[in-house]
Amino acid sequence: MTANNSTYQTASEITESIKAFADDVRATTPLVHCITNYVTVESCANAVLAVGASPIMSDEPADVVDITSICNALVLNIGTLNMQTIAGMKAAGARAAELEHAIVLDPVGAGASALRTKTAGELLDSLPVALVRGNMSEVKALAGQAAATQGVDVNPADAVMSEEDIAEAAAFARDFAAKANCAVAITGPIDIVADANRAFAVRNGSAFQGRITGSGCMLSAITGAYMARANGNAVEAALAAVVHMGAAGQAAQARMKEGDGTGSFHTYLMDALSLLEGDDLAKAALVEEVR
Amino acid sequence: MTANNSTYQTASEITESIKAFADDVRATTPLVHCITNYVTVESCANAVLAVGASPIMSDEPADVVDITSICNALVLNIGTLNMQTIAGMKAAGARAAELEHAIVLDPVGAGASALRTKTAGELLDSLPVALVRGNMSEVKALAGQAAATQGVDVNPADAVMSEEDIAEAAAFARDFAAKANCAVAITGPIDIVADANRAFAVRNGSAFQGRITGSGCMLSAITGAYMARANGNAVEAALAAVVHMGAAGQAAQARMKEGDGTGSFHTYLMDALSLLEGDDLAKAALVEEVR
Amino acid sequence: MTANNSTYQTASEITESIKAFADDVRATTPLVHCITNYVTVESCANAVLAVGASPIMSDEPADVVDITSICNALVLNIGTLNMQTIAGMKAAGARAAELEHAIVLDPVGAGASALRTKTAGELLDSLPVALVRGNMSEVKALAGQAAATQGVDVNPADAVMSEEDIAEAAAFARDFAAKANCAVAITGPIDIVADANRAFAVRNGSAFQGRITGSGCMLSAITGAYMARANGNAVEAALAAVVHMGAAGQAAQARMKEGDGTGSFHTYLMDALSLLEGDDLAKAALVEEVR
Repeated sequence: MTANNSTYQTASEITESIKAFADDVRATTPLVHCITNYVTVESCANAVLAVGASPIMSDEPADVVDITSICNALVLNIGTLNMQTIAGMKAAGARAAELEHAIVLDPVGAGASALRTKTAGELLDSLPVALVRGNMSEVKALAGQAAATQGVDVNPADAVMSEEDIAEAAAFARDFAAKANCAVAITGPIDIVADANRAFAVRNGSAFQGRITGSGCMLSAITGAYMARANGNAVEAALAAVVHMGAAGQAAQARMKEGDGTGSFHTYLMDALSLLEGDDLAKAALVEEVR
Repeated sequence: MTANNSTYQTASEITESIKAFADDVRATTPLVHCITNYVTVESCANAVLAVGASPIMSDEPADVVDITSICNALVLNIGTLNMQTIAGMKAAGARAAELEHAIVLDPVGAGASALRTKTAGELLDSLPVALVRGNMSEVKALAGQAAATQGVDVNPADAVMSEEDIAEAAAFARDFAAKANCAVAITGPIDIVADANRAFAVRNGSAFQGRITGSGCMLSAITGAYMARANGNAVEAALAAVVHMGAAGQAAQARMKEGDGTGSFHTYLMDALSLLEGDDLAKAALVEEVR
Repeated sequence: MTANNSTYQTASEITESIKAFADDVRATTPLVHCITNYVTVESCANAVLAVGASPIMSDEPADVVDITSICNALVLNIGTLNMQTIAGMKAAGARAAELEHAIVLDPVGAGASALRTKTAGELLDSLPVALVRGNMSEVKALAGQAAATQGVDVNPADAVMSEEDIAEAAAFARDFAAKANCAVAITGPIDIVADANRAFAVRNGSAFQGRITGSGCMLSAITGAYMARANGNAVEAALAAVVHMGAAGQAAQARMKEGDGTGSFHTYLMDALSLLEGDDLAKAALVEEVR
């Protein structure tokens, strides 16, 4: 199957890379400092634990510098930002930069309000962000393109839905990554993970992920764990995290039975996050390099 | 069965109204801005998604005006109010009023503290609230009656438990609605939904709803979605939301098996919220107009 | 089986005490005011409900005095402390002290940041705390010992893992309790519950409790309910709460089936908390007095 100059990447180096990152996170239990919204924070903490890492939440400006100092990565999620947590993000980010910790930025709702767009932009400009994880509307808003973010969900017009969208999305992602000097994971029906040089399309995942809150936030949180172990290969570390979440979504959907709805899906998703090991991800990965 | 001048309303216009509202919410996906407590906020977001709408949480005063502007309804829940979120509620409420969005007020704990009673009263007085959703103790506190709120739970002396209580509760609800110029949903073992002219008693629901946190908050949140589509018929839109939650409670209880407790009930409740469609609600509705 | 001068306490007075406390909490529904972190707060509220008590969350300094006044116990958990919630904890604590309510302190992350260590110490020094509930690293930090807290998890070097650790841990706990003039519950693979005179080792629990967020926070919250009914016997009230959580962990683990992971464990844990009665706890208790 070929479409738009894309070929399915079945090369073993990608599946081996995914397996290695997943097993390394479980082996080393990185500490992940999350400054994240209060909506999905418990799920984020449980997701970080599920993939084998350890979460710490702290947003008070007078607390975050000490907390970041004992951690291995920092996740900044602006989902319910306020003046105190923005100050906390900036203070934690500055300390993480000094310590050369991986910083993940989730620009929740960028494009939906001036404060969110401005704050996400300031964080990206002032900190050495290693990865931006958002939906296409949010990343476009960060890129300064006319944004049409619909609340915290992607505008359907922006979503990467089909083969036809992939090449354009991958080009946008590579360009964004080059300008922002970071990797980027744009998630949706088809996920795009890219740095300035390479882009991957990931077809793992379940439509149920869009029917619960926190799928994106949980991914950003676990990406913090993977980025803590990136060791210079941010795009493949992010790719492994995206595959971990997508494969978990598929495993969760496969367990759905009569009477089950979004509540059970959420439970099954966490179950799968906690059970999937590197070997499982290598087998489940539906990753194509977009050239 | 007749009691206290009440007759079961089996008239098809009520079941058809419930069905129409439920299907319309799923068809149109209203965006619901929730300023709600941090205890049950993830469940509220998931409940809004489950009934087919889309939630956005934002309480920072500098953010809420933009967020409310892109939404279709506003839910104000004072469960863990603080000075910042009160300011956010007032700013969001003023903008929602300008845009003629439906505003739902959940006066959690009114009567339990001076700040809660005062804040709920100020919001009700200063904003064109479309619906108040609370337990009887909270609504009595809002009405200025001697309140005996027991924390965030209803005082047993206030709960609508029996046929004998219904007529009195319905009269109180109609009177409250007339004075406050809004609809009101007073939930408990038997729910009362009223405006100045009509009152309904709803016998859907499960006793397990009182054994988990968030049953009331989730109802207020999904009522935001229904009120966004009320189109001038607030009392029937609220009635449909109350039936949706109550029918979900019954469906959840029906799935309880050996070993299941309140954790499984919560999951099953969310499952049922996500699975019930208009037809299901029309069949499940236990609604009586109280004349 | 004897080790380190410890003998299993099978004396019926302990199992009867546990049963009596558990049944009394369910019979009297104490109101528990929790000022707790926003990560695990929904689980804490549900846990308090599950054991038969009623939770109220409020952290706004202008609200907490009224709320504490209508409650029976106060739980202070510094997991996501900030300047506002610290002020709320101090105001609520002062009022709880006036009313002679039981105060439980959970020093989450003491030793991990200067603010946490200082705040936990100030609360312990200024308030008549009835019980400290933490992991060994946190309690050591509170005791002024060289702390090596790893984020919010115990440093493995500090955990009570084996028979050999118990005597030393019990001696530390009794000494801490004597100096701080309170009871203490130090939880981990083996839990130690002590006051100045007596110490108990509890072998209930499941390793899965360490793989979800909130096991410790939920225990602190339900301990508030038990301490509200301590009636002068803080150490046995705390012991009953620790056994309730540990027995629930074991019951949850026993339900784990193919495909289940940490998501299902969380649900099963809440189920078991809600189903276990005094008789069940008396049978399940694995408690040894350490002399």
